[in-house]
Amino acid sequence: MFELENERTELLKKIEDDLERKQYAHLRDLLLPLEAADIAALCEEMDDKVPLMFRLLPKELAAEVFVELDSDEQEILIRSFSNTELKEVLDELYLDDTVDIVEEMPAIVVKRILQHSDPDTRKSINEILKYPDDSAGSIMTTEFVDLKETMTVEDALKRIRRTGPDKETINICYVIDDGRHLLGLLSIRTLLLSEEDDVIHDIMQTNIISVQTLDDQEAVARSLSKYGFLALPVVDQENRLVGIITVDDAMDVLQEEVTEDIEKMAAMLPSDKPYLKTGIFETFKARIPWLLLLMISATFTGQIISTFENALAAATILTAYIPMLMDTGGNCGSQASVSVIRGISLNEIEFSDLLQVIWKEIRVAVICGVALSAANFVKLMLVDRLLFHNQLVTIPVAAVICSTMVCTVLCAKLVGCTLPLLAKKIGFDPAVMASPFITTIVDAISLLIYFQFASAILGL
Amino acid sequence: MFELENERTELLKKIEDDLERKQYAHLRDLLLPLEAADIAALCEEMDDKVPLMFRLLPKELAAEVFVELDSDEQEILIRSFSNTELKEVLDELYLDDTVDIVEEMPAIVVKRILQHSDPDTRKSINEILKYPDDSAGSIMTTEFVDLKETMTVEDALKRIRRTGPDKETINICYVIDDGRHLLGLLSIRTLLLSEEDDVIHDIMQTNIISVQTLDDQEAVARSLSKYGFLALPVVDQENRLVGIITVDDAMDVLQEEVTEDIEKMAAMLPSDKPYLKTGIFETFKARIPWLLLLMISATFTGQIISTFENALAAATILTAYIPMLMDTGGNCGSQASVSVIRGISLNEIEFSDLLQVIWKEIRVAVICGVALSAANFVKLMLVDRLLFHNQLVTIPVAAVICSTMVCTVLCAKLVGCTLPLLAKKIGFDPAVMASPFITTIVDAISLLIYFQFASAILGL
Repeated sequence: MFELENERTELLKKIEDDLERKQYAHLRDLLLPLEAADIAALCEEMDDKVPLMFRLLPKELAAEVFVELDSDEQEILIRSFSNTELKEVLDELYLDDTVDIVEEMPAIVVKRILQHSDPDTRKSINEILKYPDDSAGSIMTTEFVDLKETMTVEDALKRIRRTGPDKETINICYVIDDGRHLLGLLSIRTLLLSEEDDVIHDIMQTNIISVQTLDDQEAVARSLSKYGFLALPVVDQENRLVGIITVDDAMDVLQEEVTEDIEKMAAMLPSDKPYLKTGIFETFKARIPWLLLLMISATFTGQIISTFENALAAATILTAYIPMLMDTGGNCGSQASVSVIRGISLNEIEFSDLLQVIWKEIRVAVICGVALSAANFVKLMLVDRLLFHNQLVTIPVAAVICSTMVCTVLCAKLVGCTLPLLAKKIGFDPAVMASPFITTIVDAISLLIYFQFASAILGL
Repeated sequence: MFELENERTELLKKIEDDLERKQYAHLRDLLLPLEAADIAALCEEMDDKVPLMFRLLPKELAAEVFVELDSDEQEILIRSFSNTELKEVLDELYLDDTVDIVEEMPAIVVKRILQHSDPDTRKSINEILKYPDDSAGSIMTTEFVDLKETMTVEDALKRIRRTGPDKETINICYVIDDGRHLLGLLSIRTLLLSEEDDVIHDIMQTNIISVQTLDDQEAVARSLSKYGFLALPVVDQENRLVGIITVDDAMDVLQEEVTEDIEKMAAMLPSDKPYLKTGIFETFKARIPWLLLLMISATFTGQIISTFENALAAATILTAYIPMLMDTGGNCGSQASVSVIRGISLNEIEFSDLLQVIWKEIRVAVICGVALSAANFVKLMLVDRLLFHNQLVTIPVAAVICSTMVCTVLCAKLVGCTLPLLAKKIGFDPAVMASPFITTIVDAISLLIYFQFASAILGL
């Protein structure tokens, strides 16, 4: 693991060698000790040789590798499969993985997959496909161990031994009644550490945290992580157990959602493909809407400068400090907004904390503002005036710049911490209230403050 | 779960009521059905009543709640414990949790904890404490199930039944030789689904992915997530098994590391406390270094403006478009840098992909630049010239602005995608090469381009 770049390159070379010289037995021995995820990563560099490599793997490992491949490669493979091969792979897959694959394939491939799944699987796939994207239902699996509360531990272990091989996990077992209502759960650990004749009813845990099929997948993954569970049961509105979500799927969800948040914070529409796999036009489409919108908004800032054109012409030195004031304002604003956005997504900050957040940011802003102003004053006087002999940098000019700094920092922090919480309150995604958006607003504010101080102190 | 804000408030009110009227039995019944993490969240609002609430809980639940509390509250509780109480809680804790707590406590509390741990635990705590922060060793637990390869499945299950109650997980068991070298592993599922007289040697998995005590905790957590494992074994340099890292701890690590990355991207020093729990001065210290540094760098931009003062005085209209050009450049740059930074932290992009990344960004930049220029030209001509009758907005001026736009977008995307990869290459953290830093560089570049075009086209 943690293959170094050159280890990996070496392995790739060996594989290509074997493929070329048709040393398939040797190639197979090379692949067998690897993890499925690593083989999949290697496959992605092999292009049209993937089906060949794939056929060398034992059935079970082949299925694991298949799940880890990109949907593009999966499609190529499925198209290259004979019907028997397709059926063999499908039989080895867990249900939730099959559903993930079906969701990404074009209609004609989906039809072929459904034709070659057994009728029970087909029914389950169709049911899971009905749940909306990003819902708990869409990421759950229906392959869990269910027990009756009247069973003894011995019965339960027998049932697990019989049905276990087809289940996604046996670490947590779920106890249901005849109407499939969720009554309790117990871990395999509890089962193993109990006496053989203990009755499930007496040892199961009945304080159950469950989620509903339509709950948001991110919230589900967060609570799985918060409570440190290995799986969460998914119930319908009548509390009937319909599936479970396992910790590995929750980790994937969290990772995707974080990437989405980060993309939104940098003014991009979220994409669900890795950077190097996204086409040029797709990347363009994800980036241009916010760029356009922010460009148009930035013209207001230009408008403000136009309005004060005469003031600037009278004191040209002021223009030179515009970028510094705007950038510092933008940075202060994005620090505050990003702190609050992350706090919201970790459930550390709620809208009801608004006043507390504002009060905190005001105090931080005052200290930051004063510190920055002081540094700036020293720099103006020592560097700009004494060192570079810029006689236009007078004490009044420095006063304008430093007062603007304090006020800009204060406004920037306030705007930055308030907007994400307001966005959340009215049902918008707080993540879009990050740097680029805040910067545009703060730019305008800082210029207005600048010209106010300039006309007040310099009498322009 | 997913308690609504008002459910939670209601519960808090009930608890306060019970505390006031000393209805402890009722309060206990109120708390018992809750998850430990939820009780801990409630405790954090109870201040000095925490020790009282804590004593109402049954021993095991109390220990679970204790682990979930903030270190401040843990300290208050430990200080309020009698020696017997402290020993009771410590006996219930898993070793890795005890280590986490010890790491956060002041020396005097640590001494008391170590005094009241049993000698074996004390030894293990001291060993784990020796590993550097952020290393695999510092987050592992030494409480795992170890088996011998000569055992039968029956022996193994007996051993698990005997030692299981004290282990953090029994889902994965590790097979070691007499020198504690790691030989293989097997899941409880394999054990349960095998015959009683199967020998461990024959059914264990020997392709093991393990990590070393000094490996970075983030890399460990990422590979746990990548392979979908429930635990990873930690070995020393002689391949002796010293501990395991479980999936719940890995999820916490990933969450912390993402928060750190996000903070760095917004020009803050990372902090490991939740936003509302961080003191004003701490927040100030995390924010001011980058603000100062970026403020100083932004003065170069000012220097550029000063240099071209005469050009600006001759065509004052140019000043009005500076913010728009700078902001758009900054946004383009941060889109590219953030995409690349996230790709690096997900291991999707390596330094060897540099040329591929640059080629991709060049093409995206050209399309974005042309689209933004076109939109801008239309806006300049229709809105600024026709609608607002600004006769200074001539075709040559529009040409300067639009050409600058295309070149700025191109430079911004190039700088944005290159710097994180270069930072990674020379061993810096790519995350600091995000928006604020890129913006500062791009600001200067865009101004230089602007004045070049202005003097070329307008002959200033």
